[in-house]
Amino acid sequence: MAAPAPLSPLAPKTFPTPPAIAGVRFATIAAGVRYAGRTDVMLALFDKPAQVAGVFTRSKCPSAPVDWCRTHLAAGEARALIVNSGNANAFTGGVGAKAVAYVGEAVAQKIGASPSQIFMASTGVIGEPLDGGKIVAVIDALAAKADAAGLPDAARAIMTTDTYPKLATERVKIGDVEVSINGIAKGAGMIAPDMATMLSFVFTDAAIAAPALQAMLSKSAVRSFNCITVDSDTSTSDTLLLFATGTAGGPTISDPADPSLRPFQRALDKVLLDLAHQVVRDGEGARKFVEVRVEGAKSRKSAKRIALSIANSPLVKTAIAGEDANWGRVVMAVGKAGEPAERDKLDISFGKFRVACGGARDPDYSEEAVSAYMKRDKIVITAALGIGRSSAKVWTCDLTKEYVAINGDYRS
Amino acid sequence: MAAPAPLSPLAPKTFPTPPAIAGVRFATIAAGVRYAGRTDVMLALFDKPAQVAGVFTRSKCPSAPVDWCRTHLAAGEARALIVNSGNANAFTGGVGAKAVAYVGEAVAQKIGASPSQIFMASTGVIGEPLDGGKIVAVIDALAAKADAAGLPDAARAIMTTDTYPKLATERVKIGDVEVSINGIAKGAGMIAPDMATMLSFVFTDAAIAAPALQAMLSKSAVRSFNCITVDSDTSTSDTLLLFATGTAGGPTISDPADPSLRPFQRALDKVLLDLAHQVVRDGEGARKFVEVRVEGAKSRKSAKRIALSIANSPLVKTAIAGEDANWGRVVMAVGKAGEPAERDKLDISFGKFRVACGGARDPDYSEEAVSAYMKRDKIVITAALGIGRSSAKVWTCDLTKEYVAINGDYRS
Repeated sequence: MAAPAPLSPLAPKTFPTPPAIAGVRFATIAAGVRYAGRTDVMLALFDKPAQVAGVFTRSKCPSAPVDWCRTHLAAGEARALIVNSGNANAFTGGVGAKAVAYVGEAVAQKIGASPSQIFMASTGVIGEPLDGGKIVAVIDALAAKADAAGLPDAARAIMTTDTYPKLATERVKIGDVEVSINGIAKGAGMIAPDMATMLSFVFTDAAIAAPALQAMLSKSAVRSFNCITVDSDTSTSDTLLLFATGTAGGPTISDPADPSLRPFQRALDKVLLDLAHQVVRDGEGARKFVEVRVEGAKSRKSAKRIALSIANSPLVKTAIAGEDANWGRVVMAVGKAGEPAERDKLDISFGKFRVACGGARDPDYSEEAVSAYMKRDKIVITAALGIGRSSAKVWTCDLTKEYVAINGDYRS
Repeated sequence: MAAPAPLSPLAPKTFPTPPAIAGVRFATIAAGVRYAGRTDVMLALFDKPAQVAGVFTRSKCPSAPVDWCRTHLAAGEARALIVNSGNANAFTGGVGAKAVAYVGEAVAQKIGASPSQIFMASTGVIGEPLDGGKIVAVIDALAAKADAAGLPDAARAIMTTDTYPKLATERVKIGDVEVSINGIAKGAGMIAPDMATMLSFVFTDAAIAAPALQAMLSKSAVRSFNCITVDSDTSTSDTLLLFATGTAGGPTISDPADPSLRPFQRALDKVLLDLAHQVVRDGEGARKFVEVRVEGAKSRKSAKRIALSIANSPLVKTAIAGEDANWGRVVMAVGKAGEPAERDKLDISFGKFRVACGGARDPDYSEEAVSAYMKRDKIVITAALGIGRSSAKVWTCDLTKEYVAINGDYRS
């Protein structure tokens, strides 16, 4: 492995200290799955069965733990979550499925649960058999030291090429009951749009039953993780899980349409969007955080496709890396999206600077002002199509030589 | 502008000397459109009206010369082709359309033709108004020196970030008449699949009428230029034109289904595929030429989509740049394509080395042998899906730091 990468220049300036959530405890350990000298396994233990919802990769080649979680999600109850970094246990055939069952059953036995109540995720290299024994060997030690304040350490243990741990937290009321939502996530490559996400685990003490949790989580994922892209490559292992301990009290809500859940949905959206932005800010080699806005499109779907066409364009992304307001490449990316657009109605702006309008360069556009804007570390690109009323926002990062180095120089 | 890039290590070892085609003459000149110290305008003059067929970008934001050619293609006759490099005349609004008309009318007047018989293309920066005056100023000089042997110089005059001129030639019989097909093309970035192509111009002395030419050209484009990708970005200016002077003699063939055209179709396929491969071999920053084969797919369309998902994956392309047989990323790219695939039936090979089979690593796979293979400059990746009988081949290059440098350090 390479030496640890320096902290992303786009890293958040401060990290939140999430409040403890009653009923869930975390532990981490260095199990030597692949990395040396760092924690690489995390365990979350639920004192009582938690309600659980999940969203997974749409890859046709999902990892063994994704298969496992999908199978067990139907029951909607969790007693533990165990995650390792360093090995994705993906494309590992029958050996991979056996490793998952071996770990799941060992955790279940240790805590007196059913294997179907154990959720799992793995991230790292694809195609290497995972030695489940290394994880089973540390279960006792993990269970012994699980602690309600362990979430930040858990965020660190699931990192691969991430340069910082990703945490977000919100407090919100359901009726009169104040609840917390704490989330963690990891990136930083193989991050693509319109699928579930990389790995993200969210915990709440709200009393919400699995079907309502699932409805809210699916909605939130579409607005957050499904609106980001680092490199247009979708992982085999994308997993987003939301656990609700119910320890905050109050009546358990099962109906996703219950109006008292609306503030919770908004808070969940905030947590997921915060984590999704943190993933982009730690995109491999990223030096710029880019927001792409498409306005005046024929439909929301069309707006999002055009936004992703811009956000995934290597030529747009390299231009941003070069601090070049190369709006011609934005025009190209709008044009290639295969969605309704009219060249002669298209306006393009960088930040508040309109650079093109009505199918040509904006005559009033000041190259100097725009060049100064391009030196910022957050860039907003707006493509106003002028043919409809729908809009979309997606987020990405620039494409730098470091991305190529990270992914070409080492097997990550 | 940057200093000229060194010759691509994947450049062909020899360049063909195309035979002269009676009835068409070429001239080039340094008009100073944008570049200094090199030719940047080429003129092809047809002594008598040539039959013409064309395929253009599917971009919703096409360039002004693409609009012009589309309008005039219906008549199917050409007296001249004029092409400039350095400025794409794309997203240039009414000014761009005026520039095209100005140049077209000036060429038409010079040679006593109708403006609708003048075809045009431009390549280079997007969004800068094109000074048509610079081109009109050199028309007399160009017309005076047009020469049947000028095709190689024409190939050079249309280069932008290309490191070598692209030529291909074939001789073939239609009935008893021997005919030539000479083609030129330019890349080297903003090259994407499933669209027409970058710029390519093909000349033949065959006596074939425009409708038959068009049918053969459209077919050939699908099998050649539409199967390559450098960076998944589709140009606003992609233009492929085929001109037939008829000077080889023999009866003029108008029916595309005429069996005597079959050898011509095959020869045309060869010329276009040769040019398409040359474009990939000169992809910006390319160090490896990559053939992606997908076999055993449910349909040809599905096979091609999966092949392009692999060929466009930044993670696959950076791994190849790093000479890393990272087949896990190939699995990822198969999985994300959104097409039918079954993880546990998937085989992956690099060259003749099978690295994964039946949903896991091939137990007999020798890392050493595959690592040696990855050092070659042509890499063949095969994904055998095992679920159907359809296949597809596409071609791409690796993604290197030089691609990022070329597109991030200068406005090209």
